[in-house]
Amino acid sequence: MKIGIAQINPTVGDLSGNHALILDAYRDLVNQGAELVLFPELALCGYPPRDLLFKSRFVADTEATLKDIAATIGAVPALIGFVEQRPDGSKGRPFHNAAAWCEQGEIRHVTRKSLLPSYDVFDEERYFEPAEGPGLVEWQGKKIGITICEDIWSHAALPTSRRYCEDPVAELAAQQIDLLINISASPWHEGKNEAREPLVQDAAERCQCPAVYCNIVGGNDELIFDGGSLVADPQRGLIAGFSAFTAETRIIDLNSHQPNFSESFNLKGNAATQAALVLGLRDYAFKSGFHQALIGLSGGIDSAVVCALAAEAFGPENVMGVALPSSISSQHSRDDAAALARNLGIEYHEVPIADTVAAAENALAPLFGDRPADVTEENIQARARGLLLMAMSNKFGALLLTTGNKSEISVGYSTLYGDMCGGLAAISDLPKMKVYALARHINAHAGRELIPVNTIEKAPSAELRPDQKDEDSLPPYPVLDGILRLYVEAGLSRAEIVEKGYDPAVVDEIVRKVDLNEYKRKQAAPGLKTTPLAFGIGRRIPIVQKYVS
Amino acid sequence: MKIGIAQINPTVGDLSGNHALILDAYRDLVNQGAELVLFPELALCGYPPRDLLFKSRFVADTEATLKDIAATIGAVPALIGFVEQRPDGSKGRPFHNAAAWCEQGEIRHVTRKSLLPSYDVFDEERYFEPAEGPGLVEWQGKKIGITICEDIWSHAALPTSRRYCEDPVAELAAQQIDLLINISASPWHEGKNEAREPLVQDAAERCQCPAVYCNIVGGNDELIFDGGSLVADPQRGLIAGFSAFTAETRIIDLNSHQPNFSESFNLKGNAATQAALVLGLRDYAFKSGFHQALIGLSGGIDSAVVCALAAEAFGPENVMGVALPSSISSQHSRDDAAALARNLGIEYHEVPIADTVAAAENALAPLFGDRPADVTEENIQARARGLLLMAMSNKFGALLLTTGNKSEISVGYSTLYGDMCGGLAAISDLPKMKVYALARHINAHAGRELIPVNTIEKAPSAELRPDQKDEDSLPPYPVLDGILRLYVEAGLSRAEIVEKGYDPAVVDEIVRKVDLNEYKRKQAAPGLKTTPLAFGIGRRIPIVQKYVS
Repeated sequence: MKIGIAQINPTVGDLSGNHALILDAYRDLVNQGAELVLFPELALCGYPPRDLLFKSRFVADTEATLKDIAATIGAVPALIGFVEQRPDGSKGRPFHNAAAWCEQGEIRHVTRKSLLPSYDVFDEERYFEPAEGPGLVEWQGKKIGITICEDIWSHAALPTSRRYCEDPVAELAAQQIDLLINISASPWHEGKNEAREPLVQDAAERCQCPAVYCNIVGGNDELIFDGGSLVADPQRGLIAGFSAFTAETRIIDLNSHQPNFSESFNLKGNAATQAALVLGLRDYAFKSGFHQALIGLSGGIDSAVVCALAAEAFGPENVMGVALPSSISSQHSRDDAAALARNLGIEYHEVPIADTVAAAENALAPLFGDRPADVTEENIQARARGLLLMAMSNKFGALLLTTGNKSEISVGYSTLYGDMCGGLAAISDLPKMKVYALARHINAHAGRELIPVNTIEKAPSAELRPDQKDEDSLPPYPVLDGILRLYVEAGLSRAEIVEKGYDPAVVDEIVRKVDLNEYKRKQAAPGLKTTPLAFGIGRRIPIVQKYVS
Repeated sequence: MKIGIAQINPTVGDLSGNHALILDAYRDLVNQGAELVLFPELALCGYPPRDLLFKSRFVADTEATLKDIAATIGAVPALIGFVEQRPDGSKGRPFHNAAAWCEQGEIRHVTRKSLLPSYDVFDEERYFEPAEGPGLVEWQGKKIGITICEDIWSHAALPTSRRYCEDPVAELAAQQIDLLINISASPWHEGKNEAREPLVQDAAERCQCPAVYCNIVGGNDELIFDGGSLVADPQRGLIAGFSAFTAETRIIDLNSHQPNFSESFNLKGNAATQAALVLGLRDYAFKSGFHQALIGLSGGIDSAVVCALAAEAFGPENVMGVALPSSISSQHSRDDAAALARNLGIEYHEVPIADTVAAAENALAPLFGDRPADVTEENIQARARGLLLMAMSNKFGALLLTTGNKSEISVGYSTLYGDMCGGLAAISDLPKMKVYALARHINAHAGRELIPVNTIEKAPSAELRPDQKDEDSLPPYPVLDGILRLYVEAGLSRAEIVEKGYDPAVVDEIVRKVDLNEYKRKQAAPGLKTTPLAFGIGRRIPIVQKYVS
């Protein structure tokens, strides 16, 4: 059987745009000889639609769009993810996360998702009622099992946050199906593929039939969907794989013995991170109408990496880098910022902040009297930069990108309304050591020095006090990142972290800072998720709380 | 029977503090002659603990604290809300939202919550597995039905967002119980009491026994819990009611025929809103260690109302009001700000922004060239004020309060990192017309002019351009608030709003602005919830989306 897999990039809520995307892909795949065409989970409305689902007409409009699409589907069936309204007055949640089997101008079958993730970034139980049984369609004498995303994430060996009471794959296996389909909107993070591929393979083996996995691609707010659709055969293993981080529509012939893998299938490590962030930046900006990016360049590693990613995502001609030196800024900072801009081929400006800072300090002088300088004055510098950058963003219509990494955001080593100004946080889920690794990878990938070596090699400094170094306030980054991984991502207690060999005093100080700075993260720009647990919608910690672990 | 109701105000995660609060209330009520003492839902860890539950030791620490408490409980039982860890390896979510019946030094019974809200601000299915059956305890020959919060919100007539498949009250009624208990952490919003009282009364009638409702009190981030515990008798109706927005521990004798209502029971209208916001401000600040508030005073109605609320919450001696006039600011604005500060008895300063604005504009001049002035320059003024206010907040350790109302936050009539700077948004869930009503109420309640009449009566203006009025950019507030209520709170489509009689062009413009400004709200300070649908954790709209309703 020739299966057309439409690994498309819909925009959330863009019903007419997604309608066109779906029909274009369908026609293309039918012309190429597809016998059945698959679209991802909720392809019609984009994923995640979140509370758009509660708007009075949203689901009705989605269903109307589905009917329009179904009317143009011919003899080659299309399976399309959509939201189904449940009957008025039924108990339970109002909707199903569903898949429509469209054929000969009509919707022939609707199957529904059984396992509804409600952990990390997922809130599906807020909206959807689970299916009453597994999805099964008989077609041309074949029994086709239809699952939606999480439905195959029920294997006992999987470390999901939910331990499901049902296993749709087992139920389908008992029905002796001929083909297992999974349509997904499964967001990427580092290491996700390592779980996903064996899972699809395992499903194929359990059902003793080919398993076809069709995943969505694209950036939607914090989430990056990588595509990477694939096909597993119970005997032959993985027989096909699609591009990572790129839309792709292609036919897989289940009977062919030619392996069929796109070049960027199963991208790993820093290459995957780079491609993910470029896609996340591009989709956040382009889907919301921005075509230019603006970055404050400090000469340091974080802004350099964000700038290099932006140059790739927007094109260098659409990126403006601005250095905002103070009297404290070192010459090497300005040189490194200028060198970066030259290397990337982007527009570059210097806007000094000294006069704005002095004017603010003078305005405050009568009130502050002879109180000693403290963090207030450091923050004034950072906020003067934020004010000037936002003015440029307003004047030129460019999206200001924030440059904070996960390590500094964790401990609040950043100024709210200062360096935290901006519409999107490109590397807020990368620990500092990962930022260094990505910088080296970006240069290696380009085959030349994009990010100045001096930027990579010098000791990091916020340059808000003379001779300031990050390590004056923070432990060395390898130590900091190690503690943060255990505290923020693994949720371990102080005592458990100390047991791993870290200095108790350092652990206490880091833990205290993480807890104290929840209020800053509440007001942070959305950040692109690259780890299993990112700040943002997948981590919901109260601001005012006194738990001491 | 004499029931001790402990309507307490725990702090989220403060296990040792809550431990002390619980034991103090228990001893007090036992000394007064209580035969059974009730504590609210999750009283031990505070509500909502959110993802603190996933920290490796949080639930274990909570359970250990419960055991310590139980060990000191004597012959008078205490019913205490806590989080129960489910056995290792069990399927489903890891915890129960539970109630512990402590008696004679031990935990005698544990009952669990059946209905788990997953709508609006609630995410209980992220954490909790439902009970396997209704909570029932036999004690001194009596059958006592135990429900937790949502368990009694299952009545067919209720407009909850969830249509539950079970009804714990009906199951308990079938068991012919002698007493129905409901321990709750039910957040307040306007009109909540109108639903709550008939519900408890109805539960009493269905079970044909007294129903005792013990609710938590206090502010926790965005949520304000009002207490208002009450007792309903199937024949006699409401027989007791506790204070609104205040902790209270008191005994209710179910056999007494004396009505037993606290003075502030069932506070309504503007009086309830005022008390709610004062509690929300006070708890947000005090529970996180702030004892002073700072407010930028424009002379307008929003900052005046926030300042009056802060003076009540913090005490006038702990509030600083600062006017930050520009060359555009009118004399009446400065006069009104100064008069407000005098009326409230707070510290007052003027810090002019002209020099800071000029320095910023000069720094940008080479880059901006002869581009015409636009919203950029207006934002520079607002951001200069934000920078100066945050410097004062840093220097004096005072919590800066933002003053935006729900109408302007809806349409983005505010400057990100400008007037949106601050740790807590006190009136972000009050539409502008409600702000006016509250201002009048505050003056009437005080019996004198706290908020200058001129502030209430003049036409609102942001004063970012000469002679600017809000109505230059926005429809009159009664019209704007009407459209916003239908679009933001009721989720109606453009067409449905126009059908209600609004001008289609105005509706289109407002809807467009609401959708466009989701990114600003993402970075807004947490705001105190006062309506059934507030911006914040209860409203989850994607930033990048293209749905046209």
